[in-house]
Amino acid sequence: MSRWQPETPRRLQDAALELFSTRGYEQTTAADIAQRAGVTERTFFRHFRDKRDVLFHGQDEFTAVFVDGIDSAPADTPPLGLIAAALRSAATFFPDERREHALTRQSVIDQHPALQERERHKMAGLATSVGQALRARDVPEPAATLAAESGATVFGIAFTTWIRPGERRSLDAIAQSVLGELTRLGTSA
Amino acid sequence: MSRWQPETPRRLQDAALELFSTRGYEQTTAADIAQRAGVTERTFFRHFRDKRDVLFHGQDEFTAVFVDGIDSAPADTPPLGLIAAALRSAATFFPDERREHALTRQSVIDQHPALQERERHKMAGLATSVGQALRARDVPEPAATLAAESGATVFGIAFTTWIRPGERRSLDAIAQSVLGELTRLGTSA
Repeated sequence: MSRWQPETPRRLQDAALELFSTRGYEQTTAADIAQRAGVTERTFFRHFRDKRDVLFHGQDEFTAVFVDGIDSAPADTPPLGLIAAALRSAATFFPDERREHALTRQSVIDQHPALQERERHKMAGLATSVGQALRARDVPEPAATLAAESGATVFGIAFTTWIRPGERRSLDAIAQSVLGELTRLGTSA
Repeated sequence: MSRWQPETPRRLQDAALELFSTRGYEQTTAADIAQRAGVTERTFFRHFRDKRDVLFHGQDEFTAVFVDGIDSAPADTPPLGLIAAALRSAATFFPDERREHALTRQSVIDQHPALQERERHKMAGLATSVGQALRARDVPEPAATLAAESGATVFGIAFTTWIRPGERRSLDAIAQSVLGELTRLGTSA
């Protein structure tokens, strides 16, 4: 039997979120998380820098899934069409069975200004990467930055809606609907 | 003669920016700034919490100038028209004689991640306040948040362009042009 356990980071994430939401973020240590997940503290630190990192792990994959959508879109797709493709691709990262996990994570972040700032930093990084992908598709400035920032905004609104209690639509359906609102905004000005 | 000197905060700001850009942000203390401005350290702390606060002073006025533009726009102005009014009003806050000052301030911020994060926080606060002003004008969600975030993005792009060496257009002219690009983005999707 292999010692490599692909599910270890996920188990640590689940244990961390459970402890953060029941005991409180400040009151939870890396050692607590490791213990709850049934691994050693050393294993925890092989996967995560610290307890905050558990909440923000996977930023590269998160960003890559948006960029993949842009890269796979047909030639001559207009800028907001590329954003639609990025959002559709991103939604695959958040299937409905992740909704509870996403809501718990967001509740922890919403209670801590330092975590909110880390989240803003993550979204700023997303917009920068999407802007680069759009320029690589020959979208000129300032359209590339405008579209990239708008895409991050649409994603943020859609995500907040998706984790709202009682919401049943998929993240993809919500994101495309919010993007449609953005398009209508431009035509009514 | 009154002891109240309205120009003291401005003199402290000018002294701070001069020291930040020549000596370096880390190497400058509140005492240095006070001395350069010809006031006591106690006077410095009557106006600013710390040296970082010198760079971010006036956030309330900054936000208010956007909101004033929205509040004074005619009834039935569509959402992006309200954003145009907010940007036009905001531009009065940055006349061309402030361009040098704005460029120096930005250079200091660009060199320090902690200051960049404070600037992101300021822009997030701007978007929140503009969103509130739009909802007060009966703009529904998600249009209000989309328009507010787009307005902050347009302002950011316009501001970066405005302080670029050799740029001669006013901030108002640049902002309206970038907003036009945003509108075109929506129609080409």
